[in-house]
Amino acid sequence: MAPSAVSTQMTADLTSAGIKKTLSETVSSTEAHPTLAELDASLLTYNYTTSPRTPPERGNEAASKHSICSDHMITAAWDHQTGWEAPELKPYGPLSLYPTASCLQYATECFEGLKLYRGYDGNIRLFRPDCNARRMLISSTRIALPGFNPDELLKLIVKLCAVDGAKWLPRDQPGRFIYIRPYMIGTDASLGVQKPRQALLNIILAYMPVMDANKGGLRLLASQDDMVRAWPGGFGFAKVGANYGPSLLAQGEARARGYDQVLWLLGQNGRIEVTEAGASNFFIVWRTKEGAIELVTAPIGNNIILDGVTRRSLLQMARERLEGGWEDIEKLTVVERTFEMKEIVEAVSEGRVVEAFTAGTAFFVAPVSAIHFKDQDLSIPMNQGDSGLYAGLLKGWLKGIMYGKEKHEWGLVVEEQSSEA
Amino acid sequence: MAPSAVSTQMTADLTSAGIKKTLSETVSSTEAHPTLAELDASLLTYNYTTSPRTPPERGNEAASKHSICSDHMITAAWDHQTGWEAPELKPYGPLSLYPTASCLQYATECFEGLKLYRGYDGNIRLFRPDCNARRMLISSTRIALPGFNPDELLKLIVKLCAVDGAKWLPRDQPGRFIYIRPYMIGTDASLGVQKPRQALLNIILAYMPVMDANKGGLRLLASQDDMVRAWPGGFGFAKVGANYGPSLLAQGEARARGYDQVLWLLGQNGRIEVTEAGASNFFIVWRTKEGAIELVTAPIGNNIILDGVTRRSLLQMARERLEGGWEDIEKLTVVERTFEMKEIVEAVSEGRVVEAFTAGTAFFVAPVSAIHFKDQDLSIPMNQGDSGLYAGLLKGWLKGIMYGKEKHEWGLVVEEQSSEA
Repeated sequence: MAPSAVSTQMTADLTSAGIKKTLSETVSSTEAHPTLAELDASLLTYNYTTSPRTPPERGNEAASKHSICSDHMITAAWDHQTGWEAPELKPYGPLSLYPTASCLQYATECFEGLKLYRGYDGNIRLFRPDCNARRMLISSTRIALPGFNPDELLKLIVKLCAVDGAKWLPRDQPGRFIYIRPYMIGTDASLGVQKPRQALLNIILAYMPVMDANKGGLRLLASQDDMVRAWPGGFGFAKVGANYGPSLLAQGEARARGYDQVLWLLGQNGRIEVTEAGASNFFIVWRTKEGAIELVTAPIGNNIILDGVTRRSLLQMARERLEGGWEDIEKLTVVERTFEMKEIVEAVSEGRVVEAFTAGTAFFVAPVSAIHFKDQDLSIPMNQGDSGLYAGLLKGWLKGIMYGKEKHEWGLVVEEQSSEA
Repeated sequence: MAPSAVSTQMTADLTSAGIKKTLSETVSSTEAHPTLAELDASLLTYNYTTSPRTPPERGNEAASKHSICSDHMITAAWDHQTGWEAPELKPYGPLSLYPTASCLQYATECFEGLKLYRGYDGNIRLFRPDCNARRMLISSTRIALPGFNPDELLKLIVKLCAVDGAKWLPRDQPGRFIYIRPYMIGTDASLGVQKPRQALLNIILAYMPVMDANKGGLRLLASQDDMVRAWPGGFGFAKVGANYGPSLLAQGEARARGYDQVLWLLGQNGRIEVTEAGASNFFIVWRTKEGAIELVTAPIGNNIILDGVTRRSLLQMARERLEGGWEDIEKLTVVERTFEMKEIVEAVSEGRVVEAFTAGTAFFVAPVSAIHFKDQDLSIPMNQGDSGLYAGLLKGWLKGIMYGKEKHEWGLVVEEQSSEA
């Protein structure tokens, strides 16, 4: 196309145009590219392990230096000329990648994180896995990896859980969970800086330690000017590897100084905005100067922060059950807006902060007890001892759904099959 | 350390503090960590291939979909408890990585790019490889990978070139080159978001097509607000994978619209600054309103752009040979400063632009013929037909050093050995 023929409109938004194009191709890919095979969970082949692994005892999930993974994984390869190959369930094990693979050089990689829960009713459940499957498509598109139908990814996740669930989350041990990591990498073995022409989708199940039980609450160290996690026009909203590796240096410094996580700030237009904490969303509950209680968190519209599934669920739950008041508990209002560090400083100094917490799949809902910002140690109340009142309520409601104590559309029961089938 | 004991100074700069700490540990690591082994090129073991590969004919370097690599590679593994293992030269081949490897999930990866040149004097040469080795340490530190002595990395690069140089750059074919890719990845097989406890250094030699011979000049599409490559407080200065993958979507859009590369802009403080182009540094030569000729490029001090070796060399060469005037050519002044897109627009409209070009190892010095910005097609002169005058001169001088026509301290001759040795 001759550049002179390009309209203003077409050049206004490189990223959103690229995302729209990929998503529209994904939705109607058989029409647009009749020769490209779609990701199709019904084509899954089963190659069961002949060397079954031993699951760790309860409480020993993080005993190994390596993440302990289940017996099987699912892989599906993609090529730009043929599309998606039939997915395969096979024994968990290492991948073979050429040194020139795109993912090892140019960070063409994205992932999701969700959990499979062994419920008190004996069933295993996923929590809103459709949200993860859709977000994975947004992430893969942003990092120039192929599109797919999210419903098919969800079916593959369910099939892997169905095979390994019974053994790895024993039925007589309700309350346990295993972490599910679907991810995609560019495998194109070419050093050219370009959109990968080959990719691999892989789904694994791995144990993770329980991380929401920090008795003293999380201590956060606010980031400074030389360490910004995400920026306008960047990719903070996508679950791509490129959002995580660059954060580890500051995280390491924070830990060396006695803090648990970094509170990510973003300075722009003379403001210092609060965005996320560690790899989680950040929430604060405060009393306004007018005396009302607000649950405040950063908005997702500006593409800086991750559209967390736990975040979304907490907000919806809070709107449904807390905005009208719950039993004898004072009602609050949910507010999604950009907010500044100086608002927190002021609220702390005026005694208006009620509580704060982070939320994400890995750490679940973790109360915050302190924020260090510039030369100030800001103390955050945890009025229930190990949590704030509202965080405790919200966390309890979500756990109830996850572990089958409350029947709710967010909980998806997985039918278990034996891997010996 | 108790947070209350942390001084203001200590929390002012998470990233620079982290980088300083790693670099100081690297320099004096045997004192600080007597049990951690340093990277040591003298320990290199040789395991020669028994299945030698066939090098491509001249002109066919990019004939394969995959990058064509030489017979051997060098690897060195690192562990946080033991340090660097003895490096090994061995047959080129795939790596085995667990799905939970840090580099596949969190983009803990960085790389370098340099070239080995077959000179017209029969020797093979590297061009300022010490600059690449030092920059690799800055990149590895920024992405939370281990430090090392850059001199040892340089020795390993030389040893690999010594083994494969003779066969892969035949002595009777001066003017050819092969690309050298040292890179490091986090191999820690744990899904925890943390600094990797295991890593792998790998050096490979791969053919790349000649990319500076775009006869019509590069056509650049200026990036827009929704696609920002790097940000103050980000990591644009480091050669980490996380700078590349996120740029591919916009690059793909630019190509689909008939352009070669993206001209990366950064909007801040009401200014729209010009930073880089594609994966290269960007230079413009213009006549000031006062009538003087300036060679202008963005500065490296603010950590937004890459400290390119080609960039650095071009600037030094221009200062040495062009600021005083060369033969009958009008002298110019080298200017490193932030500059705005509107300055280019104005200079084009007033006929003051002399030429523009990009510079980097892969594309070398590539003239620019057009920039599309908003609704304008800005035409950039190439007064020598396929290049501008100054770009042509500078490129010629650098090539002279690379291919042994000019003796210069920047050219490092590699003594060749046979892989059958």
